[in-house]
Amino acid sequence: MDVFQKSLELHGKLKGKISMESKLKVNNRDDLSLAYTPGVAEPCKEINKNPEKVYEYTSKGNLVAVVTDGTAVLGLGDIGPEAAMPVMEGKAILFKSFANIDAFPICLATKDVDEIVQTVKYMSPTFGGINLEDISAPRCFEIEDRLKKELDIPVFHDDQHGTAIVVLAGLINGLKLVNKSFEEIRVVISGAGSAGIAICKLLQSAGVKDIVLVGSKGIIYVGAPYNNLHQEKVAAITNPRKLVGGLEVATEKSDVFIGVSAPNVITKEMVSTMAQKAIVLPMANPIPEIMPHLAKEAGAFIVGTGRSDFPNQINNVLAFPGVFRGALDVRASDINEEMKMAAAYAIAGIITDEELNSDYIIPDSFNPKVVAEVAKAVSKAATITGVARR
Amino acid sequence: MDVFQKSLELHGKLKGKISMESKLKVNNRDDLSLAYTPGVAEPCKEINKNPEKVYEYTSKGNLVAVVTDGTAVLGLGDIGPEAAMPVMEGKAILFKSFANIDAFPICLATKDVDEIVQTVKYMSPTFGGINLEDISAPRCFEIEDRLKKELDIPVFHDDQHGTAIVVLAGLINGLKLVNKSFEEIRVVISGAGSAGIAICKLLQSAGVKDIVLVGSKGIIYVGAPYNNLHQEKVAAITNPRKLVGGLEVATEKSDVFIGVSAPNVITKEMVSTMAQKAIVLPMANPIPEIMPHLAKEAGAFIVGTGRSDFPNQINNVLAFPGVFRGALDVRASDINEEMKMAAAYAIAGIITDEELNSDYIIPDSFNPKVVAEVAKAVSKAATITGVARR
Repeated sequence: MDVFQKSLELHGKLKGKISMESKLKVNNRDDLSLAYTPGVAEPCKEINKNPEKVYEYTSKGNLVAVVTDGTAVLGLGDIGPEAAMPVMEGKAILFKSFANIDAFPICLATKDVDEIVQTVKYMSPTFGGINLEDISAPRCFEIEDRLKKELDIPVFHDDQHGTAIVVLAGLINGLKLVNKSFEEIRVVISGAGSAGIAICKLLQSAGVKDIVLVGSKGIIYVGAPYNNLHQEKVAAITNPRKLVGGLEVATEKSDVFIGVSAPNVITKEMVSTMAQKAIVLPMANPIPEIMPHLAKEAGAFIVGTGRSDFPNQINNVLAFPGVFRGALDVRASDINEEMKMAAAYAIAGIITDEELNSDYIIPDSFNPKVVAEVAKAVSKAATITGVARR
Repeated sequence: MDVFQKSLELHGKLKGKISMESKLKVNNRDDLSLAYTPGVAEPCKEINKNPEKVYEYTSKGNLVAVVTDGTAVLGLGDIGPEAAMPVMEGKAILFKSFANIDAFPICLATKDVDEIVQTVKYMSPTFGGINLEDISAPRCFEIEDRLKKELDIPVFHDDQHGTAIVVLAGLINGLKLVNKSFEEIRVVISGAGSAGIAICKLLQSAGVKDIVLVGSKGIIYVGAPYNNLHQEKVAAITNPRKLVGGLEVATEKSDVFIGVSAPNVITKEMVSTMAQKAIVLPMANPIPEIMPHLAKEAGAFIVGTGRSDFPNQINNVLAFPGVFRGALDVRASDINEEMKMAAAYAIAGIITDEELNSDYIIPDSFNPKVVAEVAKAVSKAATITGVARR
């Protein structure tokens, strides 16, 4: 039986992967009078007097909503909110398992940007943070931007920023190994959707000057007829050499290839035209933009994928649990650029200079140090940038 | 230390009463591949093909949202969504403790009827049922009516129907004891808000012909200047003797007094004018409409309150866990009048004719038979009335 059939069977047996637990037993009238009426009136009154006390007397401070509209689920596309539920429950149990965060799936029966923003806003008093998940581009950008402005709790679109953080972590270590700096490298990103654009922005925050994004119709440049609004914006701050054409134009003499696009889009020939000691991160799942052995044969020095059966797995689970843990721990009102950078450096820092090698630029997803280090770094960055509320 | 201080301390120590638990350990890559990618794609695809399978492969079928806008919380009034959170968490742990239902608090940052209806509708794919809680009248009527129409999962405003079910259960047994029938009795309900109106309607379903509702400004009659829209509607189907005046007019020669209003509104003198073997259920909390010993001195044969320190506690916890358990067990699309009636008869039926006496017309909240019997009766009524989906 393959992993798909086994998973289906497991889901059917469990009837869902999450349950609500009570931290308190209610076995008799005394329990009831403390957990519920009449005693519960007292914490209610305290919060009513001082709303910030909701963090002291309720679960809010450790509750994260995993919000989707089911439009971009895994590689399955727009499968709707009900069919997205197994993935959102899966995400919830990863939050619990990795960072002891109580996450809850909210699958929305609307794809309208205004309605999604309103719904999340109205239900936000329950939650300490919002993790947006599997919402298709370009709607995901506006939804996240507006929620970040309107809410005083952290909002984080994991498909964008989780991926970006782990890619940056990999490059921090990878560049150390090949002795190149962020400022001097040329980076090609294949995939101009939400992940590609987020990676581009975070790499720019880290100092990269020369990034070329390549969408399914070619290199993104100012005025490209196929650009959407967000691609047009990103065009203005990328592609400094004003390249036009396909992936083969972009990859020539580039130092880093990052793939968040589709299977087998980069050929051995293209990799062979890259600069010396090239870093190739083809992360399409389950079939990468190029298979690792082919990339190596074509001259790549470091290869990392999204898969667990090859070295250097670029996996979001290295980032989001610690990022939220760190943000919640200091009641951050936002997850800002500095906090994401701090997370990336913390992930990279798990690997010592002695351990670092071309097959080990990124720590293992189950390395227990990761969450703690990321959380600590993120909390600190929140405090330094003034978004921590305690 | 009193119950309020003890409760405050407990809430501060626990930092909330609920947590999310994973039914599945995620300790290694194999676990990850079954609970999350790539395996999780399989249940997603199955649900995408057949949406009803969301009940087989996810937690939806056992998840209930406890939804409030914080406008009518306990006796505290409009304290807002954050301050309502301890009560909603309390409700959630009662669902778990009594009926093994995974309930989750959703505290809404809006009081607008349209916005509440939209928000609940959009987030409904996650849930198997909606429990509305502590939403002020008359908005609660419209919100419930509209959600019942728009959603295919059960929607239940516990402050209305939970209370009504338990009152009906008490009267089923009480009338047996005093040898009167629903058809012949005169009932006075003090309190013309959501609970009063819901009790009125359920008693009419049970056969009561003569009900007089008394609001804070007097008896509800057609055209009373103080009626709101909902009171005007209920006026048309109550008060057959066209009484006008205060509570003292309504209670004269009545068989049953039901209080869902305010402390000490009914006097000994009023009780003494009631019919022989009067049943008096003053349920205002914590101070009832009349203290039990005074009602007894004035001639009441049976007295029940909302309090646990007197006999015959009329407590919602006797109803809502079993009602939802029964509805979820058969994937009911609604909780209809027949299901509520069935719940009331099931609660009443817990007490045998031999056990029945004036201090024991309603079972104890912690009687373990209650949930099972109520759930069974509710499931059966759902099946008979065609709202069960399995």
